Amino acid sequence: MIGVILAGGSGTRFWPLSRAAYPKQLLKIFGDQTLIQTTISRIEPIIPADRLYIVTNKEQEEQIRFQLPAPPNTPRFIGEPVGRNTAAAIGLAAITLSKNDPDEVMVVLSADHFIADEKRFLDALLLAEKIAQAGFLVTIGAKPNRPEVGYGYIQKGQSLSLFEAAYHVERFHEKPNKVKAEGYLQSGSLYWNTGIFVWKIKTILEEIDRFLPELGKGLKTIGESEKKETAGVFSVIEQVYPTLSSISIDYGVLEKSDRLAVIPAEMGWEDVGSWSALDTILPHDENGNILTGNVVNVGSKNTIIHANHRVIAAVGLHDIVIADTEDATLICTKDSAQEVKQVVEVLRSRKEEAYRIHKTVLRPWGSYCVLEEGAGFKIKKICVNPQSRLSLQSHNKRSEHWVVVSGTARVTCGESVYTITANQSAYVPVQTKHRLENPIDEPLQIIEVQCGEYVGEDDITRFSDDFGRVNNQGE
Amino acid sequence: MIGVILAGGSGTRFWPLSRAAYPKQLLKIFGDQTLIQTTISRIEPIIPADRLYIVTNKEQEEQIRFQLPAPPNTPRFIGEPVGRNTAAAIGLAAITLSKNDPDEVMVVLSADHFIADEKRFLDALLLAEKIAQAGFLVTIGAKPNRPEVGYGYIQKGQSLSLFEAAYHVERFHEKPNKVKAEGYLQSGSLYWNTGIFVWKIKTILEEIDRFLPELGKGLKTIGESEKKETAGVFSVIEQVYPTLSSISIDYGVLEKSDRLAVIPAEMGWEDVGSWSALDTILPHDENGNILTGNVVNVGSKNTIIHANHRVIAAVGLHDIVIADTEDATLICTKDSAQEVKQVVEVLRSRKEEAYRIHKTVLRPWGSYCVLEEGAGFKIKKICVNPQSRLSLQSHNKRSEHWVVVSGTARVTCGESVYTITANQSAYVPVQTKHRLENPIDEPLQIIEVQCGEYVGEDDITRFSDDFGRVNNQGE
Repeated sequence: MIGVILAGGSGTRFWPLSRAAYPKQLLKIFGDQTLIQTTISRIEPIIPADRLYIVTNKEQEEQIRFQLPAPPNTPRFIGEPVGRNTAAAIGLAAITLSKNDPDEVMVVLSADHFIADEKRFLDALLLAEKIAQAGFLVTIGAKPNRPEVGYGYIQKGQSLSLFEAAYHVERFHEKPNKVKAEGYLQSGSLYWNTGIFVWKIKTILEEIDRFLPELGKGLKTIGESEKKETAGVFSVIEQVYPTLSSISIDYGVLEKSDRLAVIPAEMGWEDVGSWSALDTILPHDENGNILTGNVVNVGSKNTIIHANHRVIAAVGLHDIVIADTEDATLICTKDSAQEVKQVVEVLRSRKEEAYRIHKTVLRPWGSYCVLEEGAGFKIKKICVNPQSRLSLQSHNKRSEHWVVVSGTARVTCGESVYTITANQSAYVPVQTKHRLENPIDEPLQIIEVQCGEYVGEDDITRFSDDFGRVNNQGE
Repeated sequence: MIGVILAGGSGTRFWPLSRAAYPKQLLKIFGDQTLIQTTISRIEPIIPADRLYIVTNKEQEEQIRFQLPAPPNTPRFIGEPVGRNTAAAIGLAAITLSKNDPDEVMVVLSADHFIADEKRFLDALLLAEKIAQAGFLVTIGAKPNRPEVGYGYIQKGQSLSLFEAAYHVERFHEKPNKVKAEGYLQSGSLYWNTGIFVWKIKTILEEIDRFLPELGKGLKTIGESEKKETAGVFSVIEQVYPTLSSISIDYGVLEKSDRLAVIPAEMGWEDVGSWSALDTILPHDENGNILTGNVVNVGSKNTIIHANHRVIAAVGLHDIVIADTEDATLICTKDSAQEVKQVVEVLRSRKEEAYRIHKTVLRPWGSYCVLEEGAGFKIKKICVNPQSRLSLQSHNKRSEHWVVVSGTARVTCGESVYTITANQSAYVPVQTKHRLENPIDEPLQIIEVQCGEYVGEDDITRFSDDFGRVNNQGE
C-alpha cells in the first residue's frame, strides 16, 4: 500500500499555537511528537515512510520537512499550488501516483487525527486493503461513544459477502443536531466518518471521472504534463489546479458511488479539530481542567490552559480555553472554539505577523527569534544546528554585531574567516559579504544586534546557499 | 493645610500590572498620569507638592520617587518599616508633623482614588479645613449613585450648628449586602466612606491616645526619638513600628469618637480597588467592554481587557477581566477580582519574580529589561537617562558585551575611558571595574549580552554610586 497524508491545513483553528505558515499538524498537542510525526509513525508498521506522500502547499512543506525522518527513509511531497479541498487533493495524489501502478492500493490519511488503539487501526487498514483490491471504495468508521454533533456519520448496510467484518454503505449523514446524534448512537448501525479511506488508485480516478468529470479532465491535463519535463509540470499545475472545483471527496464522490464499503473500528479515534477537542483526548485534573505550562489556577473548572514559560493566572473561570504564545494569547469559551478563525482573519486584515508566523521561525539551518525591535535596531537569538550554515549574504542597510553565548562559530566577514566561541564577538559592517557557520557537532547560539536605518528581513542579498534559496525571506 | 498621602499598597489586587515592589498607585489606570501623580496634581490648587507627605515603605519609595515632580517642589516621604494599617500610618504622619505645628490641619488622602469632579472635591476640603479648626474629625462622604456593596457607609445626623453643609455622624456602617445597600441608597442620609479625612494634627493624636492608648504610647516613643539625631530615629522606628497594632483608623478611632463630622460631596468618587472597579470609571464600548491595547475581540461582552503590544484575542467571553504584561497574564471573572491576591501568594511561594517586579525595572539612572536569559547568558536592554550614569562596578563571574543602538555612551573599562555611539560596541571582561554613562542630553539605549557561569543580579561590587547604593540589588 501507498499512504497519502492530507496536510494542507490553514492553521486557523489552533491559533495562536498554529499559524498560517505553521498549521496544527506541526504542533505537539499531545505527547512528544507533533501530529504529522505521530501520523507517520502510527502507519509505519504497514507503510514505511518512503512509501508515504504528503499533500501540502509550498510554505507549509518547508516547515513540515524539518519534522520528517532523514532521507532516504522519508515521505515525499505532492505540492498543491493552492488549497482546493479534498476531492482535488486526493485526485492530484492519485493522478501523480498512477504513473507507476494504477492498481496499487492507496490509503488516505489526515495529519490531525488522534487514535488511541493503533493496533485496531492497522488491522482495519489491512482488511481494507483486501476489500479495496476487490474494487471497493473503503471508508473506516469509528464506533461512537457519545452523541457527538461535530462529526459526520456513515450508516452501514448489509455486510459484504466476502468480508463479514465490513459492510455496504447505506448512506452518509451530515453533522447532526443533538437529538439526531442521540438516535445515531442508540441505533448501533452508524459510525463516525473518520476521513480515512482505502482504494485502488484506478478505482478512485474512475469514480472521480464518473461523478466529477470536470475535475477528472483537469487531473488528466496535469497527469499528462507530468510525463514531460519538470519545468512544464510546474506551470501546468500552477495553471490548472486553481481552476479545479473546491469540493470534498465525501460530497463530490463517496455519497454518490455504489462501490462503497465501511469497516467499523473501535479504535478511540478523534479528529483534533479545534481547541475544545482536547477535552476528548487529554486527561483532566479533579476539577475537569487540562493545564500545561506555568499556570496558577485559583478556582477555575473545566478549563483548558496551554501555557509556556510566561505565567498564566486563571481565577474563577468555567469552560474557557486559554492558549498562550510569545506574541499572542487566545482566551475563548469552549463553545466559541470554532470562531477562532475569525481572530486570524482580523489579524490578517490588520497585517499583523502573528497570523502568519511565530516569533521563533524555523529555518533549514536552525532557527531565529526576534527578541526586540525598535527604531534603528533589532535583536535576534540565532541557533545554528551542528554542521550547518546560513547563506553567504550581505545587507545594504544594516550592520550586525554577533556575540556567541554557546558553541563555536566560524565567521566569514569580507576576506577574513575566523572562529569565535562563547563570550567572543564579531562585527559585520554594512554591505559586507558574510556567513555564519556552525563547524562542530554542538549547537551554536548567538545574539545578533542589528543596527541600521532599515532592519527588515527583506534587506538580504544571497551569494550562495546550501538550501537553494534565492528569495528575500530573511536569514 | 498639610496633605498626607497613604501609599503603602501591597500591589496584589491589580496584579499583574501591579507588583509587590510596584503597587497600583504607580500605574496609569486612566489617563496620562499615574494614580499617585493624579493624587498630587488634584490637590495642588490648595496644597502645593512641597506641603505633601507620602507614607510608604522603602522599596516602594524608590519607585514612587521616579514619578514625582523634581525638587524642591516635591512631596517628602514618611517611611514605614512595615505596613501596619491606617491607624498606625496616620499616627506616624501626625507624630512626625506635630514637631512643627500641632495645630495645623492635615488632610489624609489615598493614592488610589478616582474623582470626576475635582472642583467639588477641593470645595469640600476647604470647608473641611474650617470645621477641623473647630476641633472636629471631618470625613468626606461621597453621595452614592448605586447600591454599591463594596464600600463602607457613613450615616449623617443633625447638621452642624456653625456649618449647614456639614453634619454630625450618626454612625458608620460596614460594607452592606445588596438589600441593605438598596435601603442606604433610598434613605438619602448615607454616604460612601471615602477614607478622605481632615483634622488638626493635635485632634487626631488626642483621639488615638483616647481610643488606642497602646498605639499612642508607641507613637510618642517614635516622636521623642525623632527629636534626636537621624541614626537613632531609624532604629527606634524599626523597633517600635512593627509592634504597633494593625487596625484601621475607622474601626480603631472614628467609629468611637464623638467629635466626628461628615461633609457630603457629589464629586464622582470611586475607590480604584480592583480590576472590576474599572467598570465604574472608564467608558464602555457598545457591548459593555473596556478594551485597551492590541485586542482582537470576537463577540465578547462586558469584558475588561488591558493589553499592550502583544495580541490578546478574546472570543465569546462574558464578564471577564484580562490583564496582560510581558511576563504574566491574568484571566479572571469579574466576580473573582478580589481573589487575584491569591495568585500573588502562589507566585510568592513558588519564588517566581513575577510576584515582585516587572521585566522592565526602573532605576534611578533609567531602566533595564531582561530580554532573554539562558544557561550562561542574559540579554538586557538598558536605557540610561540623559546625563546619568550607573555605579562604578565589577562582576566576579560574568563578562559584558555592550552594543549602542541609540545615543552616546561614555564607557569606563579598567584604566580606559572612551566614547561610543550607535552601532559601536564595547567589551567588559570579568572582574574589570567599569561604568556606563550617558554624557549627553539624549537618552542612551544599549543592548547588553552577559556571558558567564553565573549571571545573577547579586554578582555586583559597587565602588562608587551617584545614588548612595551599596547593596546587591543589581545595576
